[in-house]
Amino acid sequence: MKKLKFGIVGASGRMGQEIAKVIENTKGAEVFYPFDREDKWDSRKAAQVDVWIDFSSPEALKDVLKRASEHKTPVVCGTTGFSKKEKDLLEKYSKTFPVLWSSNMSLGVAVLNEALKSLAAISHFDFQIEEIHHNKKKDKPSGTAITLQENLKKAVQKDLPEPLAIRGGGVFGIHKVYSMSDEEVLVFEHNALNRTVFAKGAVQAATWLVKQKKPGLYQIRDVLFGKKA
Amino acid sequence: MKKLKFGIVGASGRMGQEIAKVIENTKGAEVFYPFDREDKWDSRKAAQVDVWIDFSSPEALKDVLKRASEHKTPVVCGTTGFSKKEKDLLEKYSKTFPVLWSSNMSLGVAVLNEALKSLAAISHFDFQIEEIHHNKKKDKPSGTAITLQENLKKAVQKDLPEPLAIRGGGVFGIHKVYSMSDEEVLVFEHNALNRTVFAKGAVQAATWLVKQKKPGLYQIRDVLFGKKA
Amino acid sequence: MKKLKFGIVGASGRMGQEIAKVIENTKGAEVFYPFDREDKWDSRKAAQVDVWIDFSSPEALKDVLKRASEHKTPVVCGTTGFSKKEKDLLEKYSKTFPVLWSSNMSLGVAVLNEALKSLAAISHFDFQIEEIHHNKKKDKPSGTAITLQENLKKAVQKDLPEPLAIRGGGVFGIHKVYSMSDEEVLVFEHNALNRTVFAKGAVQAATWLVKQKKPGLYQIRDVLFGKKA
Amino acid sequence: MKKLKFGIVGASGRMGQEIAKVIENTKGAEVFYPFDREDKWDSRKAAQVDVWIDFSSPEALKDVLKRASEHKTPVVCGTTGFSKKEKDLLEKYSKTFPVLWSSNMSLGVAVLNEALKSLAAISHFDFQIEEIHHNKKKDKPSGTAITLQENLKKAVQKDLPEPLAIRGGGVFGIHKVYSMSDEEVLVFEHNALNRTVFAKGAVQAATWLVKQKKPGLYQIRDVLFGKKA
Repeated sequence: MKKLKFGIVGASGRMGQEIAKVIENTKGAEVFYPFDREDKWDSRKAAQVDVWIDFSSPEALKDVLKRASEHKTPVVCGTTGFSKKEKDLLEKYSKTFPVLWSSNMSLGVAVLNEALKSLAAISHFDFQIEEIHHNKKKDKPSGTAITLQENLKKAVQKDLPEPLAIRGGGVFGIHKVYSMSDEEVLVFEHNALNRTVFAKGAVQAATWLVKQKKPGLYQIRDVLFGKKA
Repeated sequence: MKKLKFGIVGASGRMGQEIAKVIENTKGAEVFYPFDREDKWDSRKAAQVDVWIDFSSPEALKDVLKRASEHKTPVVCGTTGFSKKEKDLLEKYSKTFPVLWSSNMSLGVAVLNEALKSLAAISHFDFQIEEIHHNKKKDKPSGTAITLQENLKKAVQKDLPEPLAIRGGGVFGIHKVYSMSDEEVLVFEHNALNRTVFAKGAVQAATWLVKQKKPGLYQIRDVLFGKKA
Repeated sequence: MKKLKFGIVGASGRMGQEIAKVIENTKGAEVFYPFDREDKWDSRKAAQVDVWIDFSSPEALKDVLKRASEHKTPVVCGTTGFSKKEKDLLEKYSKTFPVLWSSNMSLGVAVLNEALKSLAAISHFDFQIEEIHHNKKKDKPSGTAITLQENLKKAVQKDLPEPLAIRGGGVFGIHKVYSMSDEEVLVFEHNALNRTVFAKGAVQAATWLVKQKKPGLYQIRDVLFGKKA
Repeated sequence: MKKLKFGIVGASGRMGQEIAKVIENTKGAEVFYPFDREDKWDSRKAAQVDVWIDFSSPEALKDVLKRASEHKTPVVCGTTGFSKKEKDLLEKYSKTFPVLWSSNMSLGVAVLNEALKSLAAISHFDFQIEEIHHNKKKDKPSGTAITLQENLKKAVQKDLPEPLAIRGGGVFGIHKVYSMSDEEVLVFEHNALNRTVFAKGAVQAATWLVKQKKPGLYQIRDVLFGKKA
């Protein structure tokens, strides 16, 4: 059987190495083109890549998309901290080939975002999102909390208090969504146990993305729950 | 405006009183026929009732349904501990007029049951349901935990370990659904703060049920998310 | 057996009524002098009171202490929102008769404050206090969170981030203390189920206070763990 | 400065490697004698070891203690699953040189065990211990839960329900102690984020143990809170 050929942008970075490890442990997959910023670009080698995974940096995005567009190679991107400029780039390039971007590649967070939709039925409740991360994390609130907040707002159609952030120790990533009425409290909580969670999600997303015929800007949720028309 | 006329079965019981209080605080609603087991049945008065609420006992169910069927008056029933016999009665009578039965009338638990569907996407996870109730509660696990377990099984299509039960103090009712993989843990948790939660849900369900034209066996979830065909 | 004669300041208020109910359900205790602001003060009746309980308001404190001092009647005070002025009054009057003041009368919170001492052994961890209360509560953070923060600071001897506050629904009162290192997370959490918790604690404190021979400013922790010299 | 010379029993095992890594990252410490079952025992080398760490197996304990006793070298032992026979060995050998044994070497669990003492003040509450571990863990409940249960029993002086155990995914180790009354719930919760927590605790314990002049059977709690007479 032909193996799925992965390209990794930022291959020697922390996430790049994690992704390579997961690919190596995935049947029918291989790390074909591990690429780093300082490497010379090999267009002929890139032509054979089936799918790119990029967790590098906002600055790298433009080159990544431009190069992938040459051969219409699908791209899975897990970089966070994008401004409008980068989001526009994603929109633009995804018109001609499949691009999947999510601020959090974990399956559990995708399920959490999906579960938020059920809160539309109790939109009169009070809501609060909270996240806990290790004391090295600088951005507050986390990109995942921002996405949860956007989805929650869409579901309950009202303004919400800002997400709360706790920083301490080596907590890998906890996100909580509180729904509170006079009579009951509902808490949806996600806890990431290690970094592999994001690498596994990205590889699963890539395997799914190569099967998508249509260009488009996909999310990890589409992998689990199907692309909304 | 004409007020919605409520009948209450077991009106002097703990839940009956709670329900009466909620109805009295609901605009456009009145307690029209508070009925207790020892009362003589007044068929003419019953004819004017718009909707019955019954939280009395499994033994009472047959009479409740039979009497309601006389005038096709909708019935909201929150009694638990039903055997197959009572469930068959619900099925039978609901063929000719609207009946709504749920083991837990809280909106939050209905949302929790709905949110369980999203777990179908991660059915390879390990799952565990847990409940905590006050030390006076005798049945283990709670009726709500049993319903959650049934819905979770339906969603993830596999066998699950038995729900765990903790008994202590005056805890009103906590239910947790754990979803666990090697990389992440998702917890959906519901916490009832007081008894009113069930009365409020029942009254809201009754207000909705009187508008249903079709006979049928409804659940609290249908009130929030629409009846599945 | 002679019954313990309770005086209640603010007897018709929400907490006053709750306290009266607990006293009535306590063997060997009676509500002897329920007093409200608008009542005329009856000094002869007050002379027979064994112990006062006051949850009224900061403004009332001076009168309460002055009147109690007449007969050296012990006072249990659960009022919050005291400025330095009121705290000085407590100090002053407690030099001549026993006064017990706590921002939170629950036994569980007293245990939580005691348990914080064990965190001195891991003072290199990161810490964060968090509280959740109903959406009617205006002060942020809660008086209890402030006391926990003071005790935590004393235990770990370092600066701490401000307590976080969530407001929503009818949550009666949740307090959490997070201790986080690179390898582990410890959470101490207290959840008040109802208002009775404070009334019960106050009555238990009063029963204990009448047995204290020495004047002094006591806390609910002294009731459980003994007065520190 | 002279470095502290560590011996590791089971050096090539999973915990042995973890311990070696922590020692290498500890200033003033070195892995001097990494020993495995199949190795030939080098008594002259062993004579220079300052402290042994052993996480190998119950079967190995007798040899470990016998060999350490030759030079009265202190031993830190983190092996679990000991029967009365092994516990007797610990008692016997610790009469002539310092031995420290704990079923859980984490600082946080030691603090949790210490915090349990404060529950003596509310011994009329209901209690429940619960633990969650990965789906590969076979023993139920965990050794740590058993130790917590013993300490809790000692504190509250009454019978307790059996600890509850949840198995799922890759959860590294969660322990909860519930204290519940009609009015409040207190939860003490510990969450281990990775395996390093035990290695770090063991190395810290060893550094402390070499300074103990007196023979005796110590625990990790003594490192943090001082040996009880």
